[in-house]
Amino acid sequence: MRFRTKLIAGLLAMLAPVPALADALVDNVNGITLDKDGKVVRFNGVLLSLDGKVTKLLSSKDKRPEKLDWRADMKGRTLIPGFVDAHGHMMELGFRQLELDLSDARSLDEAKARIAAYAAANPERKWILGGGWNQEAWGLGRFPTAADLAGVAGDRPIFLSRVDGHAAWANEAAMKVAGVTAKSVSPAGGRIEKTGAQPSGVFVDAAQSLITKVIPQPLGKERNTAFVKAQGLLLSHGITATADMGTSLDDWMTYRRMGDRGDLRVRIMSYGAGIEDTVRIGGTGPTPWLYNDRLRLVGVKLYGDGALGSRGAWLKAPYADAPDQSGLGFMSDDVIRNLMVRASMDGYQVAVHAIGDRANAQVLDAIDELADTFKGDRRWRIEHAQIVDPADLPRFGKHGVIASMHPVHQTSDWRMAEVRLGPNRLAGAYAWNSMLKNGSRLAFGSDYPVESPDPFAGWAAAFTRMGADGQPFGGWQPQERITREQAWRAFTADAAYAGFAEDKFGRLGAGQRADFIIVDRDPLEVGPSELRATKVQETWVGGEKVWERK
Amino acid sequence: MRFRTKLIAGLLAMLAPVPALADALVDNVNGITLDKDGKVVRFNGVLLSLDGKVTKLLSSKDKRPEKLDWRADMKGRTLIPGFVDAHGHMMELGFRQLELDLSDARSLDEAKARIAAYAAANPERKWILGGGWNQEAWGLGRFPTAADLAGVAGDRPIFLSRVDGHAAWANEAAMKVAGVTAKSVSPAGGRIEKTGAQPSGVFVDAAQSLITKVIPQPLGKERNTAFVKAQGLLLSHGITATADMGTSLDDWMTYRRMGDRGDLRVRIMSYGAGIEDTVRIGGTGPTPWLYNDRLRLVGVKLYGDGALGSRGAWLKAPYADAPDQSGLGFMSDDVIRNLMVRASMDGYQVAVHAIGDRANAQVLDAIDELADTFKGDRRWRIEHAQIVDPADLPRFGKHGVIASMHPVHQTSDWRMAEVRLGPNRLAGAYAWNSMLKNGSRLAFGSDYPVESPDPFAGWAAAFTRMGADGQPFGGWQPQERITREQAWRAFTADAAYAGFAEDKFGRLGAGQRADFIIVDRDPLEVGPSELRATKVQETWVGGEKVWERK
Repeated sequence: MRFRTKLIAGLLAMLAPVPALADALVDNVNGITLDKDGKVVRFNGVLLSLDGKVTKLLSSKDKRPEKLDWRADMKGRTLIPGFVDAHGHMMELGFRQLELDLSDARSLDEAKARIAAYAAANPERKWILGGGWNQEAWGLGRFPTAADLAGVAGDRPIFLSRVDGHAAWANEAAMKVAGVTAKSVSPAGGRIEKTGAQPSGVFVDAAQSLITKVIPQPLGKERNTAFVKAQGLLLSHGITATADMGTSLDDWMTYRRMGDRGDLRVRIMSYGAGIEDTVRIGGTGPTPWLYNDRLRLVGVKLYGDGALGSRGAWLKAPYADAPDQSGLGFMSDDVIRNLMVRASMDGYQVAVHAIGDRANAQVLDAIDELADTFKGDRRWRIEHAQIVDPADLPRFGKHGVIASMHPVHQTSDWRMAEVRLGPNRLAGAYAWNSMLKNGSRLAFGSDYPVESPDPFAGWAAAFTRMGADGQPFGGWQPQERITREQAWRAFTADAAYAGFAEDKFGRLGAGQRADFIIVDRDPLEVGPSELRATKVQETWVGGEKVWERK
Repeated sequence: MRFRTKLIAGLLAMLAPVPALADALVDNVNGITLDKDGKVVRFNGVLLSLDGKVTKLLSSKDKRPEKLDWRADMKGRTLIPGFVDAHGHMMELGFRQLELDLSDARSLDEAKARIAAYAAANPERKWILGGGWNQEAWGLGRFPTAADLAGVAGDRPIFLSRVDGHAAWANEAAMKVAGVTAKSVSPAGGRIEKTGAQPSGVFVDAAQSLITKVIPQPLGKERNTAFVKAQGLLLSHGITATADMGTSLDDWMTYRRMGDRGDLRVRIMSYGAGIEDTVRIGGTGPTPWLYNDRLRLVGVKLYGDGALGSRGAWLKAPYADAPDQSGLGFMSDDVIRNLMVRASMDGYQVAVHAIGDRANAQVLDAIDELADTFKGDRRWRIEHAQIVDPADLPRFGKHGVIASMHPVHQTSDWRMAEVRLGPNRLAGAYAWNSMLKNGSRLAFGSDYPVESPDPFAGWAAAFTRMGADGQPFGGWQPQERITREQAWRAFTADAAYAGFAEDKFGRLGAGQRADFIIVDRDPLEVGPSELRATKVQETWVGGEKVWERK
């Protein structure tokens, strides 16, 4: 006697005598997708169903249905699946749009001028927040300091993240609000940079929390604005689904606000920021897919170490350019196992950030130990898997470990990586081809906002190992190139697989969500430079056009 | 070109030539409801629409539609609107079912025996938690103490709430875990009871947090279980909608879990527990109605004072039975205004707990001051409004202040209230009729789990001012009785109005959600004792039967 079920059954019964429900058709396309096995499939039209899914791919010879609800003629343009970014930071991307962006400042002086201009243009902001700086790009030979910021923004506190998010730069006012003095102690997993006995103004990894804890939390409306900015940016780059790697409870509430009001467009595979937020969000385990497959808490994001640029990556041997340092391991072996057990018992997928070879080995050891207890389809993920001891590379194939990697990091980092590691420890660096050869599944992302979310840059990097500048010629460690199709798969179907979403999206085929983009060239037919220059013209999610180039 | 909209439009167009969609009919009922103006309407059948709303009430003479999706014959039984509880604590009700219940312990010795039995029956519980004790009912003449609990549950910590939730009783083990000693200081708004210089084991109001902060948080699955228990209990009492007065963020996540998996039955008007949780839940303001009108964050719950039983209620003059005490005001005038402003700026409704006459005056003063700034339909709520200075009673009519009151509290408390207040301060106590005469809107609830959620007990109390025991004969302060119909309205339509839900539920009439109950007698035709004994036979929410007496 459940009223609703009965009425719907009645409704369907009434529909039966009427002609079968019409479909919609996106026709006259140069359609390309990969199939389940990663083979290229070309097609000429996409038939869609009532609920925004692909019914059938049509060749030019296939008969079109006579009754259609609507039909879009794409006039021969190229249609490919929407990209899936396997690793990004949605809210950080949005806030980065609202905050000061120093990512293209070419010198310390230019950075200071930008900060001063931003402070003048935003008098209502109590804190000057932003990021994107990279002292490597400035040829500074040292971290910037609080002293460099003296007088730049009056007496307002300044706090600016390094491009990789693993260090931040504060002025005196910020340190004063936070109560940081020469007596302050670096917390576990972090380091206060010093000038003599005094804090210099740079806070590495966990030490950033000394300042961040006193920064006022953004208001709900600011979060909404940031989300909308981030979503628009992703859609404009042709990204229709993304993993959100480290969703805080407040991030999650923002996504739900958007979903509740019907403003969620991009599909989010969410990984809670640490076990506490994950458990508070999920309660008893991963959530169901919400809002017509647009949001799901899938698992937990843990941090095993820091980043290479700030020498936070945890190495087996000391840094070549800092022989007294080997980076920072964030968790003891016991702690990482305990967290992975706690998450796995409730069915959360585990994704661990590991950049240095020591951190990667630690996670692999933990997976080795836990895999017998937690059987079944666990899809353990290692995020970045950037510098791996060649001896550990084969271990990625075991237990179905997913290597979640970021091709653009290789092209951005290779010079720095050579300096940090020296010439003899590069064989397992950004080792995409080795991962595939060893039977690991590759999932590609951009790590936005560390890098631009633009997937074409990553795609081109993946099969060339060369940057947009064509450097180094022939590719860096070119044996680790993969094919164009392998890279495409890692940016689409396998990025979905990495988030337990391969039945929902990532390809175009019957039953998949109709998430696709219209682009201005055929990405399988152009050279790498042309591929990088690809323009997305339209982005469709679930059979709705949600973005169009003006 | 929005696919879904277009297809739905197409679907509707296709339906047009088919005969109009059939309705469902609940027929052959002794139907009773109030109309918008509070007048009794009797009917014989209810026509329902596809989406679980009432289309029309039918008299026995009205023609029944020929085409019906389904029809239920109620065989003449009585059908009335589901009750709306204007003030309850959903998760506490659920946890109370899982924890030790001392509410019918008649003596300290009986309580101790119950605690020992519960501890033995639940060896896996690290803490012995529960509540419902009332030293008044034990004739103890004092609070119980930690010493009373020595040896009762081995070395496990014990923490038990008083029946009104405004005090709690701990053993030595609990105080040890919490680090409470003779040196511990009572926090603002709370009091550590003492035996000489030592903490006695009872913690009043805010002082409870000294212990609660060290109690392990319940797991998500325990929250789920508690929710399901609470929901089942409410539905079994004929309550189809409730205000949840003090929803924590974790409570909210539990409600969403239930909604996401389709297990939310009862409708919840949620008031966040304080401003911080409210803002984190709502982000930018009240949420939309979610899950087909089953969940909405409406506003914020604030606490102005404690309770009368524990002498936490804030009085203008000292307690008659404790001349050195006047209770506890939880907020300064500035703080209460600031919180009300912050909430109102974002559109949250404000509901302030005020039991003592001083606390009520403080809230009325704040509303007086803020009402000019925050115009429009604000529906300021005072929760309990229990002891009001007769001089302040007319002020409830101003600015549309809603008096959210609990008839059963009067019948439970009247003896205690006379002791606490003495004979000359009772004219504004539980003053329901005065509220109506002064133009205030009454919204009735049970304050479950402080009292049973049973609405028939409250309904009978409201027009008799006598308890289930018939005491005091003729009714306590009988001039404050209201009519049976006025009380019914306060337990249904006006409880919905108090939560901005009068267009959704609270009555039966066209456009209202089809929330109704089948009961075993006509509640307008029986005496108060028979009314109290009413049995709910079936509970329907949104046109679905969600509970049935076995």
